[in-house]
Amino acid sequence: MRPANGYFFEDYAVGQAFDHAVPRTITQGDCALYQALTGSRNPLHCSEPFAQLLGYPAMPVDDLLVFHIAFGKTVPDISWNAVANLGYADCRFVRPVFIGDTLRAQTTILGLKPNSSGKSGVVYVRSSAYNQRDELVLTWVRWVMVHRRAAAGGAAPGEGCTAFADSVDAGALRKPLKAAAGTTVARATGSDRFWEDYAADAEIRHPAGMTLDETDHTLATKLYQNTARVHFDLKHMQSSRFGKRLVYGGQVISICRALSFDGLENALSILAINGGSHLNPTFAGDTLYAVSRVLGKWPVDAHHGALRLALFGYKNVDPASAEFNDNGEAQKVLSLDYTVLMPRRGG
Amino acid sequence: MRPANGYFFEDYAVGQAFDHAVPRTITQGDCALYQALTGSRNPLHCSEPFAQLLGYPAMPVDDLLVFHIAFGKTVPDISWNAVANLGYADCRFVRPVFIGDTLRAQTTILGLKPNSSGKSGVVYVRSSAYNQRDELVLTWVRWVMVHRRAAAGGAAPGEGCTAFADSVDAGALRKPLKAAAGTTVARATGSDRFWEDYAADAEIRHPAGMTLDETDHTLATKLYQNTARVHFDLKHMQSSRFGKRLVYGGQVISICRALSFDGLENALSILAINGGSHLNPTFAGDTLYAVSRVLGKWPVDAHHGALRLALFGYKNVDPASAEFNDNGEAQKVLSLDYTVLMPRRGG
Amino acid sequence: MRPANGYFFEDYAVGQAFDHAVPRTITQGDCALYQALTGSRNPLHCSEPFAQLLGYPAMPVDDLLVFHIAFGKTVPDISWNAVANLGYADCRFVRPVFIGDTLRAQTTILGLKPNSSGKSGVVYVRSSAYNQRDELVLTWVRWVMVHRRAAAGGAAPGEGCTAFADSVDAGALRKPLKAAAGTTVARATGSDRFWEDYAADAEIRHPAGMTLDETDHTLATKLYQNTARVHFDLKHMQSSRFGKRLVYGGQVISICRALSFDGLENALSILAINGGSHLNPTFAGDTLYAVSRVLGKWPVDAHHGALRLALFGYKNVDPASAEFNDNGEAQKVLSLDYTVLMPRRGG
Repeated sequence: MRPANGYFFEDYAVGQAFDHAVPRTITQGDCALYQALTGSRNPLHCSEPFAQLLGYPAMPVDDLLVFHIAFGKTVPDISWNAVANLGYADCRFVRPVFIGDTLRAQTTILGLKPNSSGKSGVVYVRSSAYNQRDELVLTWVRWVMVHRRAAAGGAAPGEGCTAFADSVDAGALRKPLKAAAGTTVARATGSDRFWEDYAADAEIRHPAGMTLDETDHTLATKLYQNTARVHFDLKHMQSSRFGKRLVYGGQVISICRALSFDGLENALSILAINGGSHLNPTFAGDTLYAVSRVLGKWPVDAHHGALRLALFGYKNVDPASAEFNDNGEAQKVLSLDYTVLMPRRGG
Repeated sequence: MRPANGYFFEDYAVGQAFDHAVPRTITQGDCALYQALTGSRNPLHCSEPFAQLLGYPAMPVDDLLVFHIAFGKTVPDISWNAVANLGYADCRFVRPVFIGDTLRAQTTILGLKPNSSGKSGVVYVRSSAYNQRDELVLTWVRWVMVHRRAAAGGAAPGEGCTAFADSVDAGALRKPLKAAAGTTVARATGSDRFWEDYAADAEIRHPAGMTLDETDHTLATKLYQNTARVHFDLKHMQSSRFGKRLVYGGQVISICRALSFDGLENALSILAINGGSHLNPTFAGDTLYAVSRVLGKWPVDAHHGALRLALFGYKNVDPASAEFNDNGEAQKVLSLDYTVLMPRRGG
Repeated sequence: MRPANGYFFEDYAVGQAFDHAVPRTITQGDCALYQALTGSRNPLHCSEPFAQLLGYPAMPVDDLLVFHIAFGKTVPDISWNAVANLGYADCRFVRPVFIGDTLRAQTTILGLKPNSSGKSGVVYVRSSAYNQRDELVLTWVRWVMVHRRAAAGGAAPGEGCTAFADSVDAGALRKPLKAAAGTTVARATGSDRFWEDYAADAEIRHPAGMTLDETDHTLATKLYQNTARVHFDLKHMQSSRFGKRLVYGGQVISICRALSFDGLENALSILAINGGSHLNPTFAGDTLYAVSRVLGKWPVDAHHGALRLALFGYKNVDPASAEFNDNGEAQKVLSLDYTVLMPRRGG
């Protein structure tokens, strides 16, 4: 069983597996809160009739809400003593999740890389979430720097630390259900920009910004049952180098994804997160902005295409402002490489 | 399709119609959040058995939550580039909305009045919300000052800018469903003050006050999918004349309505908003108080009567305090003229 | 009917009974908000399959959410003019409450003790909550200091002010439904520490802390429809001795209970609150920590045992830190004596 003060780097072994605690039934309340916390406007997650037009039996739960709830379950066993969450790979959204479904999560240790500082190491893990029928709904790799109990020497990373593809293979992505007519989709999303309209390398500077306050991120993180101390305990954080609470990086992803609706209105489902990293910490009071870049695109079927997108998040510098060219890079908080499903014009 | 930076005054034409994006299914979560954000205690919206006693198949959704969600849909097309929301007229709550219903909204441009400043103009619109059966649930007129792309001369208002009645005609109001016994109603609301007990011109100084914090109004406004920049983007607002984010005026209405429960406990349903205006901006940290005045009353049937009420909202000055007489007027933030349905004593 | 400015001490009489206003149907939204506001991880309240394994037809509503909602109903009639909530006794959680149930509350005045100051008195009450089938779900005694309208002399307490047992009798506690296998429970809660593993007098210093912000406690208190002015009205509180809003003591209980999950993961249900008091006020910005002590234990049946626990809450001093020994006592905000049901190892 988990030690009272959590696992440290030297407690892990490659191949070790964890069944994480606290299964979680997703309710209408979770989805409403997610909307209030992000400002999401994706009609797939807020209109039952629209979801049914696309072949879903009911509104599916927002992909990122599923991610955050599943991720939260892994925190007590994997990142309770984390220094920082370093990266993600091979994250696949395998099956839709519906209100009433119950999620649980498992993790296997893939690799361990002791840092040369001797004070910490990087733990590479594969986590997976399942519904109440034991069907896989989501799987992802992440690597996280974790404190050691006692100082020790560094070492080179083993194979489990490096074997991640640059992106999720297109063949491994979830298949679309049913296509709705383009006009039907456009009426719901407010946009008649479809898959054909996004050119490779195109950049979209999303027009809106959103300021995060303290309660915004702590409510979210408590909803996700994520217990990482850095988000909640001001007294503890006052003696950290930040001097204040850190916003959960996943909430930054959610806000940037919601901001990207203006310009990517028809990017209805996330199929995969190919990779991603948090480049700077975000704090209460910061205003987030988002920019997307089209990294690639391919047809999926006669009615749908995939877009591989880079989603960049910035704090306190508006991509529409003159200062963005000078300060944008320094204010970048997020770089996320992900793949979405989008209807084709004729769809 | 909507320009990336939204519509400006000169983009509108009288008679132009908009089908707004993002249909929205209302859930138990939305209603619980509305309660947590307003402190509402109207039993019609929080007690299923009470709603059924009044002839509803289930708890109807709070009238103002319906208004805010429908209003939010119009923002991207109508008030994305607004200077200020100036007024409302002929707002009728036509049909109850239930959990599980899906709302969409449409707007027609009624009139356009170029301002003499040359920098903006006033857009007069009729917006309407429909449920998933295409039944009208709510309709209202509002006028909003919108920026111009380029300066131009002013002009006199056309007919579409002026043809609004002072109040909604009594014959146009929604009819009550079923009456419950007065004692049944009084037990649920805690008040045996019924329609007969409110004299014309009577003033009610509601005893409670409520302070709004930053997350209170931003959560609400995100829940309503209202994207007006002034509520969310602190970085942007720091360079405005306010220097900070503005509270969505609709949330001020909701808070004042909830505060008015103490004194108007049996004002169960809003039938119409005859008119209204926001007189001063409200910011996080402000404490709101409410005063009601009875503007008129008429019987509806043997069991119900209508009250036409003025609802005044004040910030940072308690109507029960001595300073209210000196400072109340200057601190007034809201003047709303609306009509409610109330059971009669014998009801 | 209740006076517009509420009841004062001299308005009450021993034996007087109140049917409190505003019946309340509990929804999925209430439960999700409770989770977001507390960070609760008890699987009994967030996993439908787990609740069913324990013999419940569905997830029961968190015991403390039931308490807060029922308590909130009593505020307008009992503690609108309260100086302070002094203590609790004989609080029994009689029946589980489910989503869709509608709660109402009643209170009887047990005793009245005029304070020697002449400005206030202590009101002793028994409150009870019922579901829509008029089944008792919760009952408790509390005593609360209430302002007088006019000064008057003090007096000795009558019998109704003193006749409270030190703890709820074991025979009066709710019986468990069905037992699940220990491994099943441990998988859900993440802990294989069962009833046998808690020794009398054992102390558990729960590892996590949680900072409360202004919106955290006001959202909670509005969700509970608790209208006590001290939590909401900053303008009013600025002229109090605190200079700011007070956090509802019940929310402090909820946060400390949620923090106690790490170390008491299998304390699935609260059977009774034997007594409790709020020792210091809590304000926005305070970070709460929790310590539990085992006060007693007894077997309930072959599969379950009861633990009587003291739950202590502290603000701004971490029980794991050196300063706790010096400052803990002064920073104590809560002392709650309660009884939980816990599976036995073989369960």
